[in-house]
Amino acid sequence: MTFLALATLVPALLGRPLRVGADSPSIAARYQDDARHLIAAALADSSAYARIAELSDRFGSRISGSTALEAAIDWILNKMKTDGLANAHGEPVAVPHWVRGAESAELIAPRRVRLHMLGLGGSIGTPAGGITAPVLVVSSFADLERHVAEARGKIVVFDVAFPDTLSPFAAYGSVVPYRVTGAIAAARTGAVASLIRSVASLSLQNPHTGVMIYDSTVHRIPHAALSVEDAMLLHRMQDRGEHPVLHLVMNARKLPDAPSRNVVAEVPGREHPEEVVVLGGHIDSWDVGEGAMDDAGGAVAAWEAVRLLQRLGLHPRRTVRVVLWTSEEFGGVGGRAYREAHRADVPRHVAAMESDGGVFSPRGVRFSGSDTARAVVRQIGALLKEIGADGVTPGAGETDIAPLVADSVPGFGLDVDASKYFRYHHSDADTPDKLDPAEVARCVATLAVYAYVIADLPERLPH
Amino acid sequence: MTFLALATLVPALLGRPLRVGADSPSIAARYQDDARHLIAAALADSSAYARIAELSDRFGSRISGSTALEAAIDWILNKMKTDGLANAHGEPVAVPHWVRGAESAELIAPRRVRLHMLGLGGSIGTPAGGITAPVLVVSSFADLERHVAEARGKIVVFDVAFPDTLSPFAAYGSVVPYRVTGAIAAARTGAVASLIRSVASLSLQNPHTGVMIYDSTVHRIPHAALSVEDAMLLHRMQDRGEHPVLHLVMNARKLPDAPSRNVVAEVPGREHPEEVVVLGGHIDSWDVGEGAMDDAGGAVAAWEAVRLLQRLGLHPRRTVRVVLWTSEEFGGVGGRAYREAHRADVPRHVAAMESDGGVFSPRGVRFSGSDTARAVVRQIGALLKEIGADGVTPGAGETDIAPLVADSVPGFGLDVDASKYFRYHHSDADTPDKLDPAEVARCVATLAVYAYVIADLPERLPH
Repeated sequence: MTFLALATLVPALLGRPLRVGADSPSIAARYQDDARHLIAAALADSSAYARIAELSDRFGSRISGSTALEAAIDWILNKMKTDGLANAHGEPVAVPHWVRGAESAELIAPRRVRLHMLGLGGSIGTPAGGITAPVLVVSSFADLERHVAEARGKIVVFDVAFPDTLSPFAAYGSVVPYRVTGAIAAARTGAVASLIRSVASLSLQNPHTGVMIYDSTVHRIPHAALSVEDAMLLHRMQDRGEHPVLHLVMNARKLPDAPSRNVVAEVPGREHPEEVVVLGGHIDSWDVGEGAMDDAGGAVAAWEAVRLLQRLGLHPRRTVRVVLWTSEEFGGVGGRAYREAHRADVPRHVAAMESDGGVFSPRGVRFSGSDTARAVVRQIGALLKEIGADGVTPGAGETDIAPLVADSVPGFGLDVDASKYFRYHHSDADTPDKLDPAEVARCVATLAVYAYVIADLPERLPH
Repeated sequence: MTFLALATLVPALLGRPLRVGADSPSIAARYQDDARHLIAAALADSSAYARIAELSDRFGSRISGSTALEAAIDWILNKMKTDGLANAHGEPVAVPHWVRGAESAELIAPRRVRLHMLGLGGSIGTPAGGITAPVLVVSSFADLERHVAEARGKIVVFDVAFPDTLSPFAAYGSVVPYRVTGAIAAARTGAVASLIRSVASLSLQNPHTGVMIYDSTVHRIPHAALSVEDAMLLHRMQDRGEHPVLHLVMNARKLPDAPSRNVVAEVPGREHPEEVVVLGGHIDSWDVGEGAMDDAGGAVAAWEAVRLLQRLGLHPRRTVRVVLWTSEEFGGVGGRAYREAHRADVPRHVAAMESDGGVFSPRGVRFSGSDTARAVVRQIGALLKEIGADGVTPGAGETDIAPLVADSVPGFGLDVDASKYFRYHHSDADTPDKLDPAEVARCVATLAVYAYVIADLPERLPH
């Protein structure tokens, strides 16, 4: 999940007071058996976990522009055809192609230590031979302002802790600005490079990457993440009056956009095939770990949910379409491309769902839409009470569905127990062992019940 | 802490029934004020944490035989003299000198992945150019026996999970035999190298090293640890019918023994200076991370406890001696050397205490000694009730005091909340940020109260 997702986490709670429709009891009555059937089938099966692990292990990390990403897309499309899904195809998207290259950060004084670092996505590299400069550690943007006179010619290190008093995504939102815009703030002070303490809730020396940006008002400087431990080490050294000096080497560079694809497949609607419920996750990842949690898990869970309808012979009134978006991590490129490619059909999109917070134990959905629609959503959620996934909270913030939600399509984010998400996120530790097959199966059940019921309701979910 | 510590964790609970001495109330009455004074002074001070961090950051890891270890010892001895401790000196010890050299483990089929590995302490290297061989993953020694026909020519990988149902040290004891003796078992099957899943309670791709051994009955093969994640990756690949092939390079080698020192300093006894209470930790570490928890923490906490007596002008009847042992990690070399150097004086050692389980929140002590002595120890423990460190459980298993305990010196291990110990142990993640200054201060208080009261009791603690 990128930081952009956060922009829409604050729900639009305006509008009419909540009305429960006259046919309120009918959703439970009409869909209880199908829901139980879907849940039982999902829970009896570990194929979703097995596919997440196979996809992750077979292709490894799948950064935008990489051959691994395209090979994974080919493999998925073949499997989707074998699965018997309809209209399985790739939709072309030109995607950013940033490559990390060789990189290192070495402390050269007061003693030599090879630090644990990862360049941030989109950063420029250093000049050949690297940058050697003293360090200025600051604890916030305000602290940088206070020490602006000392920053010129230095490598600024933002040592900002991940707050453990906030919910995981709120904590992320509070510190991720240092990752995204730290290079801009540091460059304004005359710094020669900037580093952040990795955005992570727990660290065992694993640095975390993620997207960063420049702006046109100031020159570009290299920007990278240190492990939490290494940022704290530099801070302790500075606090003791030592003067740490770093040698930073980054061969990062941006290549021309590369061809990629959004992956699309369907269970066609039996009455209104032109009306579509979209659900998916993103297939790209960062170039570290295996991108198992972010977001092979979400992509495969959505795919498996649609395959479950297919396997059980459940053909709803409307089309259920799985979309595995490409190049989410560089700012939702695949999600915007999907909306552009389907612009004329956006009004016929009944709902858009994404899982991009890890396929951990599901609690329900985060919903963005009208109060009228929310009343219906709560009734659907009640069908998931037996697996604890009946929650409906505000604010579907997922990046890939944001363009559709902005066009008034009701949006759903899979809401999970994300308490461990930021241990692994964008790091080498994002591997399949972090996921639990039983929890993944409950995520599949949740997505399948929502997708099926919304696609089959006699009345379309209100926009 | 090495695996050798475990050998003595099972207490000798035989002997006479517990007798409470006739002077039972007198310990509380006599020492309550001094104990409160020591506790208040320890808790008012963060100098112990500051010294752990400075020692760790200034010298980094301090493996047996390294210049960093000797530089750290010099620094400590200088500080001890400045502190005003008596008889601060180094006692020569010849220590093992194993060096890791460049090393790597690369998966070359079914796809290329640089794995997260650490050679194990004492391992031989690979031939120049490394070893390229297919992998056989097994889940236990018994599983290796079942697949013995497939092991010849392979790299055997022991993928054995750290059980989360046992207490931390019991869990460690159940899996560490794969690290210590895995190369022997694998070599017997004709394997060309052996790898283990790191012995760790939680992993974010950080491999854990530690000591391993060979025996004379079978040829030596290289032995290394993979991260938990990478061992599981190879296991999943094998389970899917894939045939992983690894390229292993290790330049590890053993050099001639190197000169090192046990660090010794004292607060001399006012009545029986020849009778000694020893307390300490080990100053060496593995060659990764900063060895902050294992065992700069224990070494500094013991040092600070003795310094606290000195600062508060508490001069007990007997001598309190801090000993910072060298080369614990290669099998308790410093601890054995101390016993040999002081062989004639061992009968005058009243007690031996060590902290080597991390200076986390203290719960009390693990005690090895007679029932008569244990009754006294419980009374001393009661003085620590206000900081929750009044527990007395059986089995002081610390490596460096084991030779003294074997000679009937009553032994004390600092007992702490070790629930996070094996996340960091012997890995790059063993850094000062993992310790809490307030918890460290409580460890200092616990050690200081025990050392002071045992050294001052009118009657010597029974052997």
